[in-house]
Amino acid sequence: MPHSIKPRIRIVDGDATIVMGPGKADLLEAVARSGSIRAAAEELEMSYMRAWTLIRTMNAAFRSPLVEKERGGPAQGGARLTPRGRKVLELYRKMEKKAERAIAREWETMKGELPS
Amino acid sequence: MPHSIKPRIRIVDGDATIVMGPGKADLLEAVARSGSIRAAAEELEMSYMRAWTLIRTMNAAFRSPLVEKERGGPAQGGARLTPRGRKVLELYRKMEKKAERAIAREWETMKGELPS
Repeated sequence: MPHSIKPRIRIVDGDATIVMGPGKADLLEAVARSGSIRAAAEELEMSYMRAWTLIRTMNAAFRSPLVEKERGGPAQGGARLTPRGRKVLELYRKMEKKAERAIAREWETMKGELPS
Repeated sequence: MPHSIKPRIRIVDGDATIVMGPGKADLLEAVARSGSIRAAAEELEMSYMRAWTLIRTMNAAFRSPLVEKERGGPAQGGARLTPRGRKVLELYRKMEKKAERAIAREWETMKGELPS
């Protein structure tokens, strides 16, 4: 039975609202990839309403929005990350990688305590 | 509004059961401190049944139990960590600290994206 380890990083504000975490980061990534909140929600198997609520939380929590809707034109209904959204997502993914690397040695030791 | 960050480390087995995580580590620590599952449960504001279920999960998930009940004597009803329990808890806390230190620089940058 293979075991796995995952550091889940959460940023919370003074009201204990999670302003960034694994689910929100995946959503940002899916919006960036698909160019659409609806497509991102489908990919992550959540409702459009849920995706939009998470995005509203993030947009209100940072100094400026992380996701913006595109208006008019052929891409009507589309959405994309703002420069701040791309920066926050990149920082978050970097933190995940660094945290994972930082615990690699202890994880090897911990695996010795688990059945193989 | 002060923001905070916390890497939550979870070890999951092949069935996606969390065999060690923030809640289980806190419970191990409370048992070690109080010498009693009941006192640990009260301290963490969970039912005895919930605490016992978490402990049974951990005890079955590692190569040998992490918590053992004391039998007879004046400490009847008491519980303590086994050597393996102490080792696993220590490793887990070390991983938390290392993960937190590893993301310190990115966290400083990330705070610049959040309202002060």
